[in-house]
Amino acid sequence: MKAEYHQSGLLIVVSGPSGVGKGTVCTALRKRLPNLAYSVSATTRQPRAGERDGVNYFFKTRAEFEQMIQNDELIEWAEYVGNYYGTPRKYVEDTLASGKDIVLEIEVQGAYQVKEAFPDGVFIFLVPPSMDDLRTRILHRGSETTSSLENRLGAAKDEYQHIHRYDYVVINDEVQKACDRVEAVLLAEHCRADRLVMSE
Amino acid sequence: MKAEYHQSGLLIVVSGPSGVGKGTVCTALRKRLPNLAYSVSATTRQPRAGERDGVNYFFKTRAEFEQMIQNDELIEWAEYVGNYYGTPRKYVEDTLASGKDIVLEIEVQGAYQVKEAFPDGVFIFLVPPSMDDLRTRILHRGSETTSSLENRLGAAKDEYQHIHRYDYVVINDEVQKACDRVEAVLLAEHCRADRLVMSE
Repeated sequence: MKAEYHQSGLLIVVSGPSGVGKGTVCTALRKRLPNLAYSVSATTRQPRAGERDGVNYFFKTRAEFEQMIQNDELIEWAEYVGNYYGTPRKYVEDTLASGKDIVLEIEVQGAYQVKEAFPDGVFIFLVPPSMDDLRTRILHRGSETTSSLENRLGAAKDEYQHIHRYDYVVINDEVQKACDRVEAVLLAEHCRADRLVMSE
Repeated sequence: MKAEYHQSGLLIVVSGPSGVGKGTVCTALRKRLPNLAYSVSATTRQPRAGERDGVNYFFKTRAEFEQMIQNDELIEWAEYVGNYYGTPRKYVEDTLASGKDIVLEIEVQGAYQVKEAFPDGVFIFLVPPSMDDLRTRILHRGSETTSSLENRLGAAKDEYQHIHRYDYVVINDEVQKACDRVEAVLLAEHCRADRLVMSE
C-alpha cells in the first residue's frame, strides 16, 4: 500500500478585478517558482514595442483568431475594446499532461469559462485590501478618466458578488505576502486527499 | 466592499498510522510557528520522568477522567492498553475563539470523533513514503515484538482505506518537507473562499 502525489500538473487560475495587481503577483511568483509554466494568451491587438510573439502573446489576425474559436482551440476568449484575447488550449493541456503546473492570469469572465472546461482547476481570486485601495491603484496607473475609473470600481463590486465561485481569495496587501499565499495554495492543493493516487 | 480573512482560528488535526512520525513533525512545526497552539491531552497513565502536568498531559485519575466523559468535556477519547487518553474541549474552544489556530496530534479513531464535532476542521493524514518505510521506522523504535509490528502494519493498512475522510495527505518523506506541506495547508486554508468574511 503506497500513497503518491498525482503525476499530472495543476491548472491554476489567477483572476480578480482589473487593477488589483494580477500581473505583478504573477511576475513575482514566476521568479520564485521557475518551474511553473505560464499560459501565453493569443490576441489580435498589435504588438507593443519589445513584445515578442510566443512570449508575451501569440499575435494573430482576426481571421486566424476566429478560426481558432471555430476549431475549439481556445479554452476561453473574449473581446475587449475591439481586440480578441484568448487562452490556447493545446499548450495548457500539453503542460498539464507533462506533470507541470500551469498558471493562467486572466480576467473574471475568462475564469468562468475555464472553470467549465477545467472544474478540477484551482481558482484564485485576488482582491485589494479595500475598494479605496483599488481606487488608488487604478489612479496611480494614470491612464483612467473619472468615468472609466468608476466603471472599473463598479465592475469590481459586481465581481465580488461571485467570489464564492473561486476556491481561494488572496488579499494583495503586499506583493510578497500575496505570493506566499498563492505558493501555499499550490503546495496544499498537491496534498489534497482527493488528488492522491493509491497503489498496492 | 471589503474582503477579510476570518477572525476565528483553525482546528488542525494531524493524524496517521502509529509510527509515521506525527510527534516529530508536530515538534518541528511548533519550532517554525511558535504562535500555533497545541492541544494538551488528558490521560490516566502515570507521568514518565520529566513529564509535567498541563504541559505534556493533564494527568487524571480514572474517576476524574470518567467524570470528564460524563460531562462531555472531551472532544474525543479512547482507551489504549488500559489507560484513557482524550482531548479536553475547553482549551480547544477557547483557543479557536481567541483567533489562534490549534493543532491536535491524535490517533486515527480520535480524528474521526473530532471530525464529527468539528466538521470545519482541517484533517491531515500523515503517511510514510511506503509500508516498507513504516516497518523500518517502527523497528528503529526498538520496542516492538514481531507480532505487535505486524499488528501495527495491519492497522495502518486498514486506516489507509479511510484516507478519503481526510482533507489532505502529507507524505512524511523528510520531516522538513512534511512540515512545509503542513505549513502550506494552514496558510492555504486561511485563504479559502468559503472561510472569507465579506463586509461593506
